[in-house]
Amino acid sequence: MNAKPIKRVGFVGLGIMGSRMARNLARKGFEVTVWNRTRSRAESLQADGIKIASSPAALASQVDAFCTCVSDPPALREVALGKEGLLASSRSGQLFVDFSTVSPEFSRELEAAAARQGVDFVEAPVTGSKTGAEKGTLLLMVGAKPGALERAQPIFQAVGEKVVHCGPVGAGSQVKLAGNALISMMLEGLCEGMLLTQRAGVDPRKFLEVVQSSGFRSPYYEFKGPSILRREFETHFSIDLMFKDLSLFLDSAARHRIPTPSIAAVRETYQLARAQGKGAQDIAAVVTALEDLSGEKLH
Amino acid sequence: MNAKPIKRVGFVGLGIMGSRMARNLARKGFEVTVWNRTRSRAESLQADGIKIASSPAALASQVDAFCTCVSDPPALREVALGKEGLLASSRSGQLFVDFSTVSPEFSRELEAAAARQGVDFVEAPVTGSKTGAEKGTLLLMVGAKPGALERAQPIFQAVGEKVVHCGPVGAGSQVKLAGNALISMMLEGLCEGMLLTQRAGVDPRKFLEVVQSSGFRSPYYEFKGPSILRREFETHFSIDLMFKDLSLFLDSAARHRIPTPSIAAVRETYQLARAQGKGAQDIAAVVTALEDLSGEKLH
Amino acid sequence: MNAKPIKRVGFVGLGIMGSRMARNLARKGFEVTVWNRTRSRAESLQADGIKIASSPAALASQVDAFCTCVSDPPALREVALGKEGLLASSRSGQLFVDFSTVSPEFSRELEAAAARQGVDFVEAPVTGSKTGAEKGTLLLMVGAKPGALERAQPIFQAVGEKVVHCGPVGAGSQVKLAGNALISMMLEGLCEGMLLTQRAGVDPRKFLEVVQSSGFRSPYYEFKGPSILRREFETHFSIDLMFKDLSLFLDSAARHRIPTPSIAAVRETYQLARAQGKGAQDIAAVVTALEDLSGEKLH
Amino acid sequence: MNAKPIKRVGFVGLGIMGSRMARNLARKGFEVTVWNRTRSRAESLQADGIKIASSPAALASQVDAFCTCVSDPPALREVALGKEGLLASSRSGQLFVDFSTVSPEFSRELEAAAARQGVDFVEAPVTGSKTGAEKGTLLLMVGAKPGALERAQPIFQAVGEKVVHCGPVGAGSQVKLAGNALISMMLEGLCEGMLLTQRAGVDPRKFLEVVQSSGFRSPYYEFKGPSILRREFETHFSIDLMFKDLSLFLDSAARHRIPTPSIAAVRETYQLARAQGKGAQDIAAVVTALEDLSGEKLH
Repeated sequence: MNAKPIKRVGFVGLGIMGSRMARNLARKGFEVTVWNRTRSRAESLQADGIKIASSPAALASQVDAFCTCVSDPPALREVALGKEGLLASSRSGQLFVDFSTVSPEFSRELEAAAARQGVDFVEAPVTGSKTGAEKGTLLLMVGAKPGALERAQPIFQAVGEKVVHCGPVGAGSQVKLAGNALISMMLEGLCEGMLLTQRAGVDPRKFLEVVQSSGFRSPYYEFKGPSILRREFETHFSIDLMFKDLSLFLDSAARHRIPTPSIAAVRETYQLARAQGKGAQDIAAVVTALEDLSGEKLH
Repeated sequence: MNAKPIKRVGFVGLGIMGSRMARNLARKGFEVTVWNRTRSRAESLQADGIKIASSPAALASQVDAFCTCVSDPPALREVALGKEGLLASSRSGQLFVDFSTVSPEFSRELEAAAARQGVDFVEAPVTGSKTGAEKGTLLLMVGAKPGALERAQPIFQAVGEKVVHCGPVGAGSQVKLAGNALISMMLEGLCEGMLLTQRAGVDPRKFLEVVQSSGFRSPYYEFKGPSILRREFETHFSIDLMFKDLSLFLDSAARHRIPTPSIAAVRETYQLARAQGKGAQDIAAVVTALEDLSGEKLH
Repeated sequence: MNAKPIKRVGFVGLGIMGSRMARNLARKGFEVTVWNRTRSRAESLQADGIKIASSPAALASQVDAFCTCVSDPPALREVALGKEGLLASSRSGQLFVDFSTVSPEFSRELEAAAARQGVDFVEAPVTGSKTGAEKGTLLLMVGAKPGALERAQPIFQAVGEKVVHCGPVGAGSQVKLAGNALISMMLEGLCEGMLLTQRAGVDPRKFLEVVQSSGFRSPYYEFKGPSILRREFETHFSIDLMFKDLSLFLDSAARHRIPTPSIAAVRETYQLARAQGKGAQDIAAVVTALEDLSGEKLH
Repeated sequence: MNAKPIKRVGFVGLGIMGSRMARNLARKGFEVTVWNRTRSRAESLQADGIKIASSPAALASQVDAFCTCVSDPPALREVALGKEGLLASSRSGQLFVDFSTVSPEFSRELEAAAARQGVDFVEAPVTGSKTGAEKGTLLLMVGAKPGALERAQPIFQAVGEKVVHCGPVGAGSQVKLAGNALISMMLEGLCEGMLLTQRAGVDPRKFLEVVQSSGFRSPYYEFKGPSILRREFETHFSIDLMFKDLSLFLDSAARHRIPTPSIAAVRETYQLARAQGKGAQDIAAVVTALEDLSGEKLH
């Protein structure tokens, strides 16, 4: 495999995270070409000198490396493996970096498909929310063979500030799924506790003050607690995406025969929120699903 | 009610937390008298100039204020309201500070019983674990009338470093129960995630590294994550006590009609650990209960 | 203890079940005296030759045996052990039959309190719903010492058609709690299945037809399935009472350290229904709580 | 499509159910040809005049109709759609009857693939356990277009005694998944209740007697209750298969946004049993998983 330095980078998937990551790649000096199913989202990046390709396949033919950051496995399957997909016109020596959150099995399937074209594959799901994507301070959970990892480092440096190499392809996805499951538990405990506290006649701000003064404080609570009380539910990470990731986590637990009863219970809360039509809202809005259940509204 | 300054302090309940708190009171200059069901635990404090009373009632007759820090509501009922209990020989003008975690309802019952004797009652459940009790850096969740709160401040300063006044008596318990429920969710998410990560062939240290590099990091994970991997389960907070607190949380949720499905699920994991005979172990040992379930042992 | 034949029977608690059981006792030839907190419910029985007492204590002084069938442990505590309660004016040789569903521990406490007055105590929680109470075809789960059991048989024959002697006092309650937990699981499985079936575009009647044609058919499904589809939710057994019984079951599981994760999950559905203000409705109305969660209404 | 009467029937998948169904087809006069991955299971049917094909494709070329009854969707995908699969050598006018339990989506995919070859497809998942398969008394939950349904009736009559036409292809699977979820809830309630009853010192036979004397009695309990107490766990329906079906149910619930918290909780018990290496045992053996959790063994 030929491994010349990467200058031209393609980016497919311009959602909350992807659009900001593509812009950071351009700002760090890469020549960036993008493609997005909804073309208007791509057009908003043209001011940053970013070009638009007519399809994933067209994009792949114009770059040294191509990145994906799409919402779920079926979307990734189409842009990577579809008739007009990236690998349909890729060539030996290219690099494929996937920032999406998918199952470890699907990541390995992509690695194998890429290898058949002589393309190096790296999985690098991210965490850090919209703000981290904006500022280029994301945390990347990378699964890759050593050589491929090294090639991807300049791209990683442009979008994130911390890279954890978790192991071969699949390991990054595995850690990402566990991380999102952890977040769902932290948030659920906060929401259930705030609602009961308030219903019992106690100001939930007191509960938040205790949390933030204690050993179980977290930047996450520092961020989400007050925004929940201000009822700011701007979407950083949507309920639909968390539901998808919890489902992938539970599928993985099923495959590996690890009982995870609490995460199974938490997923149902996300199901509730989706059933209420809140799937596109931020995960903090699960509190509103719980509010609807309990008839208690935080104020 | 007469409110002269407090010099002589009684302390009932010398467990992991209470023994350290009593010693800190003595070090800060209070004349301390203690009582404990198992007398040997009291004797170990005599080197610090601490006296031993023959019963809670005898203790109450010798002090300006008396404190309790016992394991559960029945124990508190006996030492406070029993025939040989504190209120059996209390007198008007005394102060009663309860550091135990009980239900808000029981706290209010104690306040009423104390008031009938002219005794001020303050609830002040704590968090901060053994280390915080040792160093006098506990966080106190206080429920009290303003006057009683003020009187208790010198005692609070001797054992803790942060006081959150949550509201009237009952509010401190309510917040404490929510705080412990939150901890149980945080810990459960960590344990379920570590087990699946390892079973899938990924080093759980990578998962911990991601957690600690992310926005959802917490001192709690910094502390518990590595100690779980080193299999250090020294008891800071026992599974039996957490089970009791989660049960009180769910009782409170039932009374207030707040559905809390995830915390209900987590409580069952503590039940499992208890059924396996691990009730006296630290809550971090729930991971060993999950290990037994899954046949996967962290290493 | 003197054990003359029982002619005069008192009955306290004239709810859905109790009013029908009292009437059957009168029809079978007993001289019946009743008391109910809401007096109007007692008055409707006067046409059957039933007398009304002014208090539980007054009732106990006029009869050979007294029965209770009240909604929960606090209510039973008051009518049995309160100042104006049954045992306040009971006398040696009487028989006390409790048809309520309470915890095994409370049943044993009542037996001990009765014994101190020379009164035989028998617990006999029932199942069979309103129709069974009406027709005198209830199933009784009896906990009693052999002698007391024998004395109570004429009363049992008047209200039920099947007596299962489960063991000493406490055993009947234990079996009753397990029975109600079982019903809650059967009903929940039916409701969750019907909703998903319909949402997926399949007539839920087909699901019911399969259930009723299969080896897992039950008279319970024969009864509840069609009434749910007709949206007939006349109260046979209320959501509040089932929630109380599931809570007693989980308390018992906690005491005995038996993990019961599924019943813990089901209880939360009843909590939801209560939070929606449906506590007084029949347990079949949990389906409407699930409908509200899912936005799918059975038709 | 040509619809001549069916004489020669192929059968793929000779597990607990399939082997008995194939034999019944032969006994009712069909000329039966079978194929099974493990050839020895096919050989045991030769005494009944049943022929063995060398592959699913070879089988399809020799029959008027072919049936499948395999353990899960991947197995069905291979025998139906694989290179050597049934549809690889099927011809217009044939009938394809699938008795497996798969997702409604996969059933519809098979119907479409069959239609492209001019083959009628019918889904007919069954219930009735090993005994029903043996005696030809199964209950069939059929999804089919009217014409195809009619063609399949002679086959249905040979293996079952009750056909419920649930709707078009997909409807039968949907009802089957709900039915199995219902069974899992019924069984779980029985097991959790029996364990707690016994731990509390009461004979679980008393609980079973109450269940079987009550309105919530069921042939299923009549069958499973005593066999659990006799510790007879002969495999009628395996834990692995129930886990697969509960997973399909939850996938369907996720797709349709129906929260099913209790069935999510029950699935975790099956996960536990699998983690303990009990996947191949009968679903009644979930009680032994719960026994291991609780340290209480039924006797």
